[in-house]
Amino acid sequence: MSEVNVALIGYQFMGKAHSNAYRQVRHFFPGKLVPRLKVICGRNQPALEAAARQFGWEETETDWRRAIERDDIDIVDIATPGYLHHPMALAAAAAGKHIICEKPLANNLAEAREMLHAVKKAGVAHMVMHNYSKLPAMVYLKNLVDEGRFGTVRHYRGSYLQDWIINPQFPLVWRLVKKLTGSGALGDIGSHVVDLAHFLNGPITSVVSQMTTFIKERPLPGIGAGAWGAKGQKGKGKVTVDDDTNFLGQFKNGSVGVFEASRFCGGRRNFNIVEIYGSKGSASFNLERMNEIELYDGTEPQSGQGFKTVSVTESVHPYIGAWWPPGHVIGYEHTFVHAMHDFLTAIEKNRLPSPNFEDAVQDHFVMDAIERSAKSKKWEKVRK
Amino acid sequence: MSEVNVALIGYQFMGKAHSNAYRQVRHFFPGKLVPRLKVICGRNQPALEAAARQFGWEETETDWRRAIERDDIDIVDIATPGYLHHPMALAAAAAGKHIICEKPLANNLAEAREMLHAVKKAGVAHMVMHNYSKLPAMVYLKNLVDEGRFGTVRHYRGSYLQDWIINPQFPLVWRLVKKLTGSGALGDIGSHVVDLAHFLNGPITSVVSQMTTFIKERPLPGIGAGAWGAKGQKGKGKVTVDDDTNFLGQFKNGSVGVFEASRFCGGRRNFNIVEIYGSKGSASFNLERMNEIELYDGTEPQSGQGFKTVSVTESVHPYIGAWWPPGHVIGYEHTFVHAMHDFLTAIEKNRLPSPNFEDAVQDHFVMDAIERSAKSKKWEKVRK
Amino acid sequence: MSEVNVALIGYQFMGKAHSNAYRQVRHFFPGKLVPRLKVICGRNQPALEAAARQFGWEETETDWRRAIERDDIDIVDIATPGYLHHPMALAAAAAGKHIICEKPLANNLAEAREMLHAVKKAGVAHMVMHNYSKLPAMVYLKNLVDEGRFGTVRHYRGSYLQDWIINPQFPLVWRLVKKLTGSGALGDIGSHVVDLAHFLNGPITSVVSQMTTFIKERPLPGIGAGAWGAKGQKGKGKVTVDDDTNFLGQFKNGSVGVFEASRFCGGRRNFNIVEIYGSKGSASFNLERMNEIELYDGTEPQSGQGFKTVSVTESVHPYIGAWWPPGHVIGYEHTFVHAMHDFLTAIEKNRLPSPNFEDAVQDHFVMDAIERSAKSKKWEKVRK
Amino acid sequence: MSEVNVALIGYQFMGKAHSNAYRQVRHFFPGKLVPRLKVICGRNQPALEAAARQFGWEETETDWRRAIERDDIDIVDIATPGYLHHPMALAAAAAGKHIICEKPLANNLAEAREMLHAVKKAGVAHMVMHNYSKLPAMVYLKNLVDEGRFGTVRHYRGSYLQDWIINPQFPLVWRLVKKLTGSGALGDIGSHVVDLAHFLNGPITSVVSQMTTFIKERPLPGIGAGAWGAKGQKGKGKVTVDDDTNFLGQFKNGSVGVFEASRFCGGRRNFNIVEIYGSKGSASFNLERMNEIELYDGTEPQSGQGFKTVSVTESVHPYIGAWWPPGHVIGYEHTFVHAMHDFLTAIEKNRLPSPNFEDAVQDHFVMDAIERSAKSKKWEKVRK
Repeated sequence: MSEVNVALIGYQFMGKAHSNAYRQVRHFFPGKLVPRLKVICGRNQPALEAAARQFGWEETETDWRRAIERDDIDIVDIATPGYLHHPMALAAAAAGKHIICEKPLANNLAEAREMLHAVKKAGVAHMVMHNYSKLPAMVYLKNLVDEGRFGTVRHYRGSYLQDWIINPQFPLVWRLVKKLTGSGALGDIGSHVVDLAHFLNGPITSVVSQMTTFIKERPLPGIGAGAWGAKGQKGKGKVTVDDDTNFLGQFKNGSVGVFEASRFCGGRRNFNIVEIYGSKGSASFNLERMNEIELYDGTEPQSGQGFKTVSVTESVHPYIGAWWPPGHVIGYEHTFVHAMHDFLTAIEKNRLPSPNFEDAVQDHFVMDAIERSAKSKKWEKVRK
Repeated sequence: MSEVNVALIGYQFMGKAHSNAYRQVRHFFPGKLVPRLKVICGRNQPALEAAARQFGWEETETDWRRAIERDDIDIVDIATPGYLHHPMALAAAAAGKHIICEKPLANNLAEAREMLHAVKKAGVAHMVMHNYSKLPAMVYLKNLVDEGRFGTVRHYRGSYLQDWIINPQFPLVWRLVKKLTGSGALGDIGSHVVDLAHFLNGPITSVVSQMTTFIKERPLPGIGAGAWGAKGQKGKGKVTVDDDTNFLGQFKNGSVGVFEASRFCGGRRNFNIVEIYGSKGSASFNLERMNEIELYDGTEPQSGQGFKTVSVTESVHPYIGAWWPPGHVIGYEHTFVHAMHDFLTAIEKNRLPSPNFEDAVQDHFVMDAIERSAKSKKWEKVRK
Repeated sequence: MSEVNVALIGYQFMGKAHSNAYRQVRHFFPGKLVPRLKVICGRNQPALEAAARQFGWEETETDWRRAIERDDIDIVDIATPGYLHHPMALAAAAAGKHIICEKPLANNLAEAREMLHAVKKAGVAHMVMHNYSKLPAMVYLKNLVDEGRFGTVRHYRGSYLQDWIINPQFPLVWRLVKKLTGSGALGDIGSHVVDLAHFLNGPITSVVSQMTTFIKERPLPGIGAGAWGAKGQKGKGKVTVDDDTNFLGQFKNGSVGVFEASRFCGGRRNFNIVEIYGSKGSASFNLERMNEIELYDGTEPQSGQGFKTVSVTESVHPYIGAWWPPGHVIGYEHTFVHAMHDFLTAIEKNRLPSPNFEDAVQDHFVMDAIERSAKSKKWEKVRK
Repeated sequence: MSEVNVALIGYQFMGKAHSNAYRQVRHFFPGKLVPRLKVICGRNQPALEAAARQFGWEETETDWRRAIERDDIDIVDIATPGYLHHPMALAAAAAGKHIICEKPLANNLAEAREMLHAVKKAGVAHMVMHNYSKLPAMVYLKNLVDEGRFGTVRHYRGSYLQDWIINPQFPLVWRLVKKLTGSGALGDIGSHVVDLAHFLNGPITSVVSQMTTFIKERPLPGIGAGAWGAKGQKGKGKVTVDDDTNFLGQFKNGSVGVFEASRFCGGRRNFNIVEIYGSKGSASFNLERMNEIELYDGTEPQSGQGFKTVSVTESVHPYIGAWWPPGHVIGYEHTFVHAMHDFLTAIEKNRLPSPNFEDAVQDHFVMDAIERSAKSKKWEKVRK
């Protein structure tokens, strides 16, 4: 058993979730490498120190470059707004650190490719935090797909709907500013949709899309409303990203895909849907009921066919043996614990973690085609 | 109270459903005009006579032109495969008969426009049997939309999934032969999707689509397997229509639309989904639970928001007062009874029934754009 | 093919449902005996005539004894308030007519036993209209039980919840007056619970109960508010029946039962639940979603166990072949059509229909024990 | 900020859940008193040390009396089989320690009363771990009840169904041996049912019950299969507790209750149901979907009434502000974190925690009446 020292950059939502994962992982998934919460980075010193205290970090650092360059740091975890992923990952790779990076990997395809190049050159472990592929239900589903349980997949649906910016008075936070975040619904939640589709059904080869911004201007967030996007201005600012992105896709395996990513679907708080329809069976998943999956077996006798709600909380299900008895559900943050376990195991066994920057670049190829299609108004090939 | 004599052409699935509607309508919806089941038409005399007996028709006729031309016929009801709609409607209009026609109205846009021209010129009443707009839940939903309950609609989803031809051994019935039916999933179930979208959310102005045929050849149905498509050949024949059609759309009101029509979604027997997302609220409907609708009100206090399952079985709901007490559900065939009631009322009051050939032509404009887009691989404007 | 002439007594809710069944049955279930809607009986001549017109009856009759005694009547159908079942059934049996009687069979056990004695002595066909045992889902479930699909049944739940009298201003209709109706929630909906339990899981041998009247007085309905219970008084009257009845039971097969019947459960419009838990599997049914049933198979591999929602709309399911394709749901009134078909078939084949007065007497034995227990405050044996 | 030292007795399922809560509580709920995981107790030294390592305890102790008597221990947490609760609590109270005890508090009413007497005399803080009253959905529901949202409650249903001992080959673990555990389904899950009913709807005043043991003998667990119940014997042993317990109850507030607790309901893994029906509204909860609650408002307009599925994951919901954004669900173990937070806050503010031994004794009064009724076969008053 040996410790690996972590530097975490970011202390908001994702910083909190990642911190929890580092604290928890070895209490449920014993393993040789034990993460030590060494240093947490941010710009606002008082807020940072409060976060360090609450989340359990030993030290704070307001200059992320300094944290990355520390000799005692083994893992750099990037949980910042998107525009910082690229310089941070490049610096961390240059410093020879293993890297975990929040999704989407970068603000655009070019950045993502450079980041992949850097980590490959550096020979470090790398993971992109598409945590939903660490859901027990999704890994279970992937296994069923691989076993051929659904036969030849024909029709795939991926839909991620939220509603947190429906109100036009919701301010212009960094997630609505293109230079800070790359894209809107597409990058934030659409990237999950693409990543899950790749995970479950293989490469998407062409797409046609529709990207819409319903609310063109929003109130500026004002002083103190958020360190990244706001600069204390009054008045309104331009929304420079998509509110709602839909696309059709063609998979390499011959199946078709229908996709949605929207932040304007009232009542859908975190409604990430996956549906798989194959020649022999079907599956349906909803993140808001993340402990369940619905399965249809078309080979059963006609009188007894139907969608079965499987509670993915059995000890035989992926990751679940480490947690609680059947029917005792787990929550959102557990996905990050699973990811950290997989990441540490990969380092220990000198394997490539998954999903990694290579996977993330594949996602970016698709997102790039989606953005091109929204302009060209036609189907676009996914470049490779 | 006076009788109107009906000639029904077709005695299969739709013939059975329409017959039931004529028999039932005045037992639940009293009215001045009372339909009389005068004559049912088909080619196979013994089968036709059995149908007449079971469905309650007074006479049979194997030559549909003769039935249409009878002086004592007031209403011609066309419930045949699609390629016959056009000549039958033209003949019925020429004979001055009121017309009910199954959906999709025609095998293509040109035919549909001619049919509309004919009925307008003849001055007869005309209705296209998009029966789902006669669902209490759909009329109730339409009223809520019109009252502004959802605010400005932003995102619309229409999805009709079935699974009856997943098996590659399912034979080449007429619904899989382009010259007999015009198109496949698009015309059969996609036309419902388009019609409901128009009914609930107004005109679609542009689309981009993806039309796929997964199973290219199927066994010929053989002698006696079906009068229309099969001619007794052995071996296999080409499937000439789409198995699965998806499209994105732009509505005139600024909202976006995501649409699916597929016959390859295992476990979805009759899964016709409508979702409406507006600035103030949302709705979700599933035909397999046709007596329910889910409503979300975004103006409620934050702690109590959620989708509410309303049982559309109250006496205050559309059409329901004629049926049973709350919670005593109605079924599929009731939609046809509602349609017949509306049709007869329209004739009596000298109003245009709804949905009519004009509405159907609007649907065909969209379907035409979908078919053009599938070829051009780009967004296509809906022509008018 | 030959006609059988029906006299129906009662033209309210049940009169409407039975009329529909007689009209519809042969259009979906062809058979040798064809019911003819000969005469409908009631006290209020104008209302009766309107009903006859709308429901399709040839004649009306305000003296039910006269209708029963007509030589040309073959079937007497009793769809009146409970206190009239006994004299009507006795008269009909004496006249040698086949009898259909609404549930509960009688106002008390003694009446029920006399009625059974009368029909047996007369040698006529007899059926009690426990229509829910004619639901496709219930017959399908019964077949699964008989096949041993659930193994040894251990735990049974039957619960029928409604909410139509929650409002204390709801008037004192006949269903709230003991001398007119025998009992309240117990007889009206609890009798369904008992009958389904007997149908699915065999005899109940002992019970302990709790019968409650929450609202002790209600407004009198006033003149014209309903011919049976109201006599035009003003003011309030005493509620003399139970609002809510719960009981525990022991089945002959060793399983335990938990039962509810309440008219005070807000939001439950027609919420008739059945749950069966056996050594090998389980089932769950809800009348508000009467086209579905949920099935659990405990013999499946652990990773894939769960409740499966089967749409009981396949041609292989009971009665469904006569109706529509898969996923095209049926409604409440269809259960009566099935019952009429079974009744006519039984007459034709000279078999005892089911459920019949014998079954109903078994139900009354249990209801009698429930009423005794509510007074004795202890477990009571079901007498035989 | 000051530390409080905890001694935890037990390291199986509950030991794991409590350990997690102590580790996590201050990372999400900052507070003055910070628990320190000082010592964990058990009999099997190697297993205990492994648990200490994984769960994060500083020391181990195989003699629980010694741990309790340590001067540096502030809190004793009893997470052992039931028969040990009594001596441990008495010792801990005598030593002046604050006490958390797993449910049910004791093996019988007499023990429970002695335990309450001891903690009151000692003046220490005491809590019984009925963790489900710490579910956000349950606290939210309790608040709605107190606000009068449901009006006068009429009908209550509490049902806890599991299925883990359906297989007759499942061994005779300590939970099936009366001297070790007091009772079976009643104490283990029925105590939750009673406690939630008291929490939400006030005191139960009389009951009638039915307690059943379906499988009378089971295989002995064999050497090493479990330290508490097994003594290495071969062969079979007697099941001395109930498999399935149902009861009816009368609440002090005039409402009626229907209750189930069973370990023989296949497919119900952790199916803890609460239903409340009042004069103005209703609620329904299912632990397997613990992040949701269904609410019905009978005061809404008739056309829009129905059960609304509220995701209890908003920052305004109880406890949720400490966790994640809306729709990002929490899991089973979070209830223990909430309980620890409440317990520590109570100590800090010198308040009585809730639920405490007083509440637990009230639960035991009801359980005692249930056991008496099972023998007397009649309604029994809940003694006080």
